[in-house]
Amino acid sequence: MEPCFLTAAAAAAQIREKTLTVEQLVRSCLERIEQRDRDVRAWSYIDPAYAIAQARELDKRAPAGPLHGLPFGVKDVIDTADMPTGQNSPSYVNHRPSKDAGCVAVVRQSGALILGKTDTVEFAAGGRKALTRNPHNFAHTPGGSSSGSGAAVADFMVPLAFGTQTGGSQIRPASFNGIYAIKPTWGSVSREGAKLLSAYCDTVGWYGRSVADLALVAEAFRLRDLASQKPVTPRGLRIAICRTPYWNKAEPAAQAALAKAAERLEKAGARVQDLELPSKFNSINEAQRTLMIGEGGVAFLPELLTHGDRLHAEFRDMAENKKGITAKTMVEAYDLAADCARTFDALFGDFDVVVAPAAPGEAPEGLHTTGDWVFNAMFTVMHAPCIAIPCTKGAKGLPVGVQIVGPRYSDARLLAIGAAVAPVIDAEGK
Amino acid sequence: MEPCFLTAAAAAAQIREKTLTVEQLVRSCLERIEQRDRDVRAWSYIDPAYAIAQARELDKRAPAGPLHGLPFGVKDVIDTADMPTGQNSPSYVNHRPSKDAGCVAVVRQSGALILGKTDTVEFAAGGRKALTRNPHNFAHTPGGSSSGSGAAVADFMVPLAFGTQTGGSQIRPASFNGIYAIKPTWGSVSREGAKLLSAYCDTVGWYGRSVADLALVAEAFRLRDLASQKPVTPRGLRIAICRTPYWNKAEPAAQAALAKAAERLEKAGARVQDLELPSKFNSINEAQRTLMIGEGGVAFLPELLTHGDRLHAEFRDMAENKKGITAKTMVEAYDLAADCARTFDALFGDFDVVVAPAAPGEAPEGLHTTGDWVFNAMFTVMHAPCIAIPCTKGAKGLPVGVQIVGPRYSDARLLAIGAAVAPVIDAEGK
Repeated sequence: MEPCFLTAAAAAAQIREKTLTVEQLVRSCLERIEQRDRDVRAWSYIDPAYAIAQARELDKRAPAGPLHGLPFGVKDVIDTADMPTGQNSPSYVNHRPSKDAGCVAVVRQSGALILGKTDTVEFAAGGRKALTRNPHNFAHTPGGSSSGSGAAVADFMVPLAFGTQTGGSQIRPASFNGIYAIKPTWGSVSREGAKLLSAYCDTVGWYGRSVADLALVAEAFRLRDLASQKPVTPRGLRIAICRTPYWNKAEPAAQAALAKAAERLEKAGARVQDLELPSKFNSINEAQRTLMIGEGGVAFLPELLTHGDRLHAEFRDMAENKKGITAKTMVEAYDLAADCARTFDALFGDFDVVVAPAAPGEAPEGLHTTGDWVFNAMFTVMHAPCIAIPCTKGAKGLPVGVQIVGPRYSDARLLAIGAAVAPVIDAEGK
Repeated sequence: MEPCFLTAAAAAAQIREKTLTVEQLVRSCLERIEQRDRDVRAWSYIDPAYAIAQARELDKRAPAGPLHGLPFGVKDVIDTADMPTGQNSPSYVNHRPSKDAGCVAVVRQSGALILGKTDTVEFAAGGRKALTRNPHNFAHTPGGSSSGSGAAVADFMVPLAFGTQTGGSQIRPASFNGIYAIKPTWGSVSREGAKLLSAYCDTVGWYGRSVADLALVAEAFRLRDLASQKPVTPRGLRIAICRTPYWNKAEPAAQAALAKAAERLEKAGARVQDLELPSKFNSINEAQRTLMIGEGGVAFLPELLTHGDRLHAEFRDMAENKKGITAKTMVEAYDLAADCARTFDALFGDFDVVVAPAAPGEAPEGLHTTGDWVFNAMFTVMHAPCIAIPCTKGAKGLPVGVQIVGPRYSDARLLAIGAAVAPVIDAEGK
């Protein structure tokens, strides 16, 4: 097997056992990119010679951390000191940050090789779409705003990549591309040097091709309680199937995926029940939207004043509060989010994990859209950790995933549950 | 009067009326710094020739915004593209960011002249103290972590300066230095490019020498509802005197200041009542501490991995979770903060404004301490806007202030109330 097809966990093991060099792995990724990226267009910046030079350096060094030698893609709204950070914005073409973002520093110091920058929706917030296409069918979106990261990991160009999520920018592309992703608990990963949209919602997360891949990166970030986490088996696991207040937005493909996941888990011995959320959850996505746009105005005021009319109208409108978001609406949104988070967490006396749709269905056709984050916004604004798991395929042959969700700061336990349920849910082979 | 002694509002008016040039104002500030900063040590970076060149440019230009020609100090944890940002850390000596922080861009594009960088507690978080001394008595601290900004504005070196507050780093130095400050509602000012400590608590604010000064900067930041705000008079204003759950930490000077403020407001026709907070507020400062240290670990993990043993032990300990903060404690802290914020906001049916101590007393002696933020942490973690107002002097002749506090996102109303009550509370002359 070509090394680029290895999961991060498998590649890390081979590098550790010296059956694979970092250079071999990086060359394989670069070759894959060379073959495929003219069509997929996942990358906004890559320097093959620099990547190979870095790989050789890593091959000489003793492993520094859990990610030794693993190529990592970085969504281009996240600062890198050695590569431009263009944010897919005409105002930041070739902008060179003076310093790595906090999350980049963590993985780099843990041994990762920053392979390049991946295309993104402008500022991860709106405006220009990425040029990236869904590797399963080029006529379809890979989702967004982490478009390039999702497609690059799915297309075996890189085993790991960063995304960010304010609404559904991390988990939805995972579903559309048939890969794994984690959006950790809000506040548990440094956002320094990542372009901000909503202070209350923004979270840095990452993609991989297995739960073990996600766990490797979680180890680098020292997410709480990883060391003390016990392994989990599907048998007896108390599963809450949550259709969310937005079930009417679930297309047949998403409905089928959730049903399949429930059926497979039950067959594996899990105790599967339906979960109906209290009525206050009915307006939680509006709360997320209010905070995203209201805080987005704060994030884009500096851009508006600096770049004026060159700034895309969507960001100008946010900075000028064209939606007329009031103080009262903002405060009600924060309070509803906090109230729902508390109620949601309390459910986990009766359940071990919540399973919900990761996206409304297959990836939509066309690159003018990145799909709908209706099934993601509520968990983002509640600050809950989410893991996307591939499940099935829709009528068009495109992947459809589900997400598992836990209470705040249960990321370690959620990864352990994910490791147990992923082989059950993601059972159709690749 | 030498221009450096003008408030920002007065200087702005004179510049607008062309009775003062920006160059005259800047030269006066630079002269004051030249005379005094050998003792005060407020500035970590200043380039007089560059400042004068910028002033001349501004004198040629039509006013671009409300801050046209006003010199502005920037706490050295906030990025500036044209000046180093050292963070008072040995790891960032002469570090040059590639881009202005969001807040710097906003004031620069609104006409402000960035005069220089002000000394700070290391990373605004601990470790090394600033070298700054209290301009009222060099043997005393100016407070921290916004040490240089507070002292520079108090000592007439610059009319305006940025600070940040995670616990009490903005409001406490205002009290110790006898000046005005606002810590706006959390989320209402961009933190991009400001060193983060706690994602849930950190707020960028600013210093001035009058409420009108603070309001000018608020206008640049387009804080909500400024345009629709009606003027306020002290007569009939419903004032809640809040001793907080930490009254036992109030020294005689702070007790006297709060009593004086109440007495003066009552004489001016305000309706003054005592406010006893519900018992759940008794552990709110612990919640702030938990979040600051817990999220601080996230903020300092990249620094730990990059700088290793060169990183100050206080930050290493945070990144390694030496205090053993658990997931449960974090979640309880978020929930208590959100719960108290909601309860606090609801009080404003019966009251127009809360008045509370701004600091435990006069500035402590010595530069080994920056004083206690016991009267600030609770309002920070509740995301409430706070304005510091000078009130009286203590036994050592040092200034003591109070703070007025409003519900979240009432910054515009709080500034209007501040404009009405400041002449009443700050009635001893300078």
